[in-house]
Amino acid sequence: MSYPLPLKTVALIGRQDSPEVADSIVALSGFFQSRGVRVLVETETAIEVSQLSGSAATAGAECGDFASIGATVDLAVVVGGDGTLLHAARQLGRFNIPLVGINQGRLGFMTDIARSNMLEAMSLLMDGKFTPEDRLLLDTEVVFGGASAQWEPLANVAFNDVVIDKGATGRMIEFELRVDDEFIYSARADGLIICTPTGSTAYALSANGPILHPKLGGIALVPLCPHALSNRPITLPDTACIEVRLVQGANARAHFDGQETVDLMPGDGVRLKKSPHRIKLLHPPSYSYFAMLRQKLHWSEGPSIRPGLVVNAPCAKSD
Amino acid sequence: MSYPLPLKTVALIGRQDSPEVADSIVALSGFFQSRGVRVLVETETAIEVSQLSGSAATAGAECGDFASIGATVDLAVVVGGDGTLLHAARQLGRFNIPLVGINQGRLGFMTDIARSNMLEAMSLLMDGKFTPEDRLLLDTEVVFGGASAQWEPLANVAFNDVVIDKGATGRMIEFELRVDDEFIYSARADGLIICTPTGSTAYALSANGPILHPKLGGIALVPLCPHALSNRPITLPDTACIEVRLVQGANARAHFDGQETVDLMPGDGVRLKKSPHRIKLLHPPSYSYFAMLRQKLHWSEGPSIRPGLVVNAPCAKSD
Amino acid sequence: MSYPLPLKTVALIGRQDSPEVADSIVALSGFFQSRGVRVLVETETAIEVSQLSGSAATAGAECGDFASIGATVDLAVVVGGDGTLLHAARQLGRFNIPLVGINQGRLGFMTDIARSNMLEAMSLLMDGKFTPEDRLLLDTEVVFGGASAQWEPLANVAFNDVVIDKGATGRMIEFELRVDDEFIYSARADGLIICTPTGSTAYALSANGPILHPKLGGIALVPLCPHALSNRPITLPDTACIEVRLVQGANARAHFDGQETVDLMPGDGVRLKKSPHRIKLLHPPSYSYFAMLRQKLHWSEGPSIRPGLVVNAPCAKSD
Amino acid sequence: MSYPLPLKTVALIGRQDSPEVADSIVALSGFFQSRGVRVLVETETAIEVSQLSGSAATAGAECGDFASIGATVDLAVVVGGDGTLLHAARQLGRFNIPLVGINQGRLGFMTDIARSNMLEAMSLLMDGKFTPEDRLLLDTEVVFGGASAQWEPLANVAFNDVVIDKGATGRMIEFELRVDDEFIYSARADGLIICTPTGSTAYALSANGPILHPKLGGIALVPLCPHALSNRPITLPDTACIEVRLVQGANARAHFDGQETVDLMPGDGVRLKKSPHRIKLLHPPSYSYFAMLRQKLHWSEGPSIRPGLVVNAPCAKSD
Repeated sequence: MSYPLPLKTVALIGRQDSPEVADSIVALSGFFQSRGVRVLVETETAIEVSQLSGSAATAGAECGDFASIGATVDLAVVVGGDGTLLHAARQLGRFNIPLVGINQGRLGFMTDIARSNMLEAMSLLMDGKFTPEDRLLLDTEVVFGGASAQWEPLANVAFNDVVIDKGATGRMIEFELRVDDEFIYSARADGLIICTPTGSTAYALSANGPILHPKLGGIALVPLCPHALSNRPITLPDTACIEVRLVQGANARAHFDGQETVDLMPGDGVRLKKSPHRIKLLHPPSYSYFAMLRQKLHWSEGPSIRPGLVVNAPCAKSD
Repeated sequence: MSYPLPLKTVALIGRQDSPEVADSIVALSGFFQSRGVRVLVETETAIEVSQLSGSAATAGAECGDFASIGATVDLAVVVGGDGTLLHAARQLGRFNIPLVGINQGRLGFMTDIARSNMLEAMSLLMDGKFTPEDRLLLDTEVVFGGASAQWEPLANVAFNDVVIDKGATGRMIEFELRVDDEFIYSARADGLIICTPTGSTAYALSANGPILHPKLGGIALVPLCPHALSNRPITLPDTACIEVRLVQGANARAHFDGQETVDLMPGDGVRLKKSPHRIKLLHPPSYSYFAMLRQKLHWSEGPSIRPGLVVNAPCAKSD
Repeated sequence: MSYPLPLKTVALIGRQDSPEVADSIVALSGFFQSRGVRVLVETETAIEVSQLSGSAATAGAECGDFASIGATVDLAVVVGGDGTLLHAARQLGRFNIPLVGINQGRLGFMTDIARSNMLEAMSLLMDGKFTPEDRLLLDTEVVFGGASAQWEPLANVAFNDVVIDKGATGRMIEFELRVDDEFIYSARADGLIICTPTGSTAYALSANGPILHPKLGGIALVPLCPHALSNRPITLPDTACIEVRLVQGANARAHFDGQETVDLMPGDGVRLKKSPHRIKLLHPPSYSYFAMLRQKLHWSEGPSIRPGLVVNAPCAKSD
Repeated sequence: MSYPLPLKTVALIGRQDSPEVADSIVALSGFFQSRGVRVLVETETAIEVSQLSGSAATAGAECGDFASIGATVDLAVVVGGDGTLLHAARQLGRFNIPLVGINQGRLGFMTDIARSNMLEAMSLLMDGKFTPEDRLLLDTEVVFGGASAQWEPLANVAFNDVVIDKGATGRMIEFELRVDDEFIYSARADGLIICTPTGSTAYALSANGPILHPKLGGIALVPLCPHALSNRPITLPDTACIEVRLVQGANARAHFDGQETVDLMPGDGVRLKKSPHRIKLLHPPSYSYFAMLRQKLHWSEGPSIRPGLVVNAPCAKSD
């Protein structure tokens, strides 16, 4: 059975500061209302749209913050780039609301619908032609050791990655890694990226991290400029509980999806594990993860050989 | 319940050409027989041992090839290095017989019992103190396309890796990658490594591949000197069916665990997927995968901070 | 004073098997003869051209092999890709004859004149508008140790690189490196690339080697899949005498510019040092090494800031 | 002729906060005075030594700051680690005073005399047995573009490296690179390391930069986590004038040898070129750059083949 039907209420969330995004929000609002779907425009998006397109632009739609959206809607449509979708996913992760991403410019890894045919795509979506894909979300907490041990751990989520790095100084930090309460190593480095499959094509890729397929139940640890040349990326099963504790580093910081930052003192650390929630992305019929990779990474386009030439049992059936 | 009790028959398999290995085989044979366990020495090992230690060396033990071993024994004890264990695992994979590895020199990734205390370790094993660990095995077949399409696919297994490479020429090959019958990319490179978590710390690591934890259900694709600088390692879920088809390359070859090699012609290829069989390794109580990594890769030894300082719910319970 | 004037005799050298190359050769032959320049078509190129374009195609031109060309001409014009120019440079290196490269398709690193405007470019060349650039050439010799110690060393040159690799087997080789008769290290790896700045953007780049600017007096050593993770590329001054001796490896080979190959036995090795000859490339006025890099590696195109905004002494004068 | 004889005045410079260093300074002071050499203890070192070892500890020696040292001494002896020598070299670079480094713990890349035999080493030095080696020093200036264009450029030096990085934020910066006033590329990355051969084994190595032999006249540009996967390290001749201009990045910074830091605003940049001064290191007779590399990077220790087996003309003579 297809997903997410029937569609009663939809949220519209857009990147700020963009007239094109405002126009798209207005058009989507009209489209969904004409189909009898209630529309909730995210509050800041609504303010921006009304400033850019006039106050009646999203006539008939209501406004709501992320909490209202989370409590109400069947689907969130995000207009912008991957960063906008990342932001929305972080806010809505605990509500299990499916997300679709509409990109204004070049398609992103997650915003895989082009603005130019977004209304056709939304029609397909309402016809139940989209495919849901669950993505790993991490529950994280900053734990304050040493002098500030009385503080409460600070909870957060990560859809792409948690990055512990040296902050403003030009000097390496030292940290200790534990997995499931087992000491793994102590390392000096500029930092460490801990990423989900979704985040493996973001920052971690530029640090020579491995690409992880979204269906892989894994979390990658990718060191940033490690002092030990034998310190290589490692991929753990996503059942692992990971703890990174700062040993040395006066200005170290933890970044969550590059959108929130916490200062760390020696003795402080970050713990993370798989969230019980997952981010549900909806993809149009034409979507292919590999096609997206191929396009974004400029891999070759076409095959020259017919597949599966002589094998009697094709892949799909032989598993 | 512990594993693999009761132990009625055990196989002894050793690396050829090593007097120390022969001595160990003799000692292990005596040990197991004194405990009332029937001993089957692998045929070539037995020949080697009798040449090196005299014909009565393994008195009371029987001989058998890998097929007999597979049909008979409850456990295979492998004496040598990781290569010896790899060889035994390839032969015994389809019989689901647990393996333990005794190393003559430095401990290996899989041969994690030192010769110096092997008899104590075997006592612990017989007391049910060892822990089983299942490792991914790949079923592979070489498919002959083009002119030789009438040939039968050639079946094989891979415990570490399948490597398609350029062979003797100094020139790149071109190949196409498909996953679950979907075209992924066409690439020119020296070759491609497809490895299991077990193989991720072997050849693939030297090609900048990611380390994959054995519990991760993943298969890594690691290109060898790819012409496109954006061609990076990718890790797929181990449910993937992977096909690599040679497009260009006069002397290309496919290597299975570095132990068997098949020549490839353009149009030929290799397909692989998860085997229904898994390799069951038995580890002594002191075993830790991460400790092994730390020692082999010269990572730092000791922690300086107590773990889990302020977090109320430790990892193990919070999953 | 400009180079290489006056132009009395020019050689034309083309890639085989290409009708477009044949057409270009014919056009260039006519062009140079109409300017009163004697034309010598390289023998195999001439045979190919006459087969593809008819026997009178290069009427008025003479034929000659590389030895005659080396003894006679003031300039060699190479039509094809970088591989064709590499081949010509290897043959003509010891004659100190300048080379220009005309590319049929996408511009290469060294064949930097497009076929579409080759005649205008040749006019500029004859007007003395081209700029010479000297590139490092290596003199090499294969030395036969062990059983074949009585053999003569086998001399060769390398303009791009010398590659020692494992050949057809799937197993690492072991080799020892010496620089200026000092032992540097013993390493196990798939092989070793030793490259000039010219070769640093070829094979070595795909093995994570550093790009070396052509004006840098350096030679890079780039290991192929080294077993020791701390074995990194190193760049030596081009005054170094480098020796690589094979310790283990049943099928190892040495490749010279990917165009000639010699089998190596343990004990054999390769020695190399800077040649007294250099390869002289002539570049059109529009040539920029960095622009070529930028285009070939898909780096960003344009600047957004004016350079040298506030510095009184610009670079060019302050050295 | 040997260097730097005759020795009239020597400076002693030590790492702060270390009783062992204080003891070494006292011992060296006595040693040199007993040989009739005047001793100048660097002011802060002297304060530290007197606190740790008593006020008469360096009786007979004088004190002086780096300016006095630069104006007076024939040799500076640095006691500490590579960081201490780096600091001293930065202060003394423009005075052309030779440096020797004595290490308290494990030998460093530049502090290549062990404390345990430092007095014997100093005897050898006074006997003229040490070998001088000149190392590249960079002259740098921070240039303030945009709003602050009226500011004076800020001069500095770099012996290891200049690092432009993103500072405290978790977001990439964008910068433009120019070489000899030619635009090379615009890139987004965490930053860029520009290093000398001396710095190539420091921070740059952990960012996958190439090792540059000290005799190589080169400067390496090593990107930190570049967004474009084709952005690779490049080595330029040390005659290049290099300019990096910040395009985007709210908290970017420039670090000089990891010891001084300047905040950068978009439009600001760093220019650098070879200094007319060079850092002169004095090495003991046993010193070998490659032996140091081998030890620090844990490369293999010993050769198994005799070098130069069949080649008549050894390297040293054939250049």
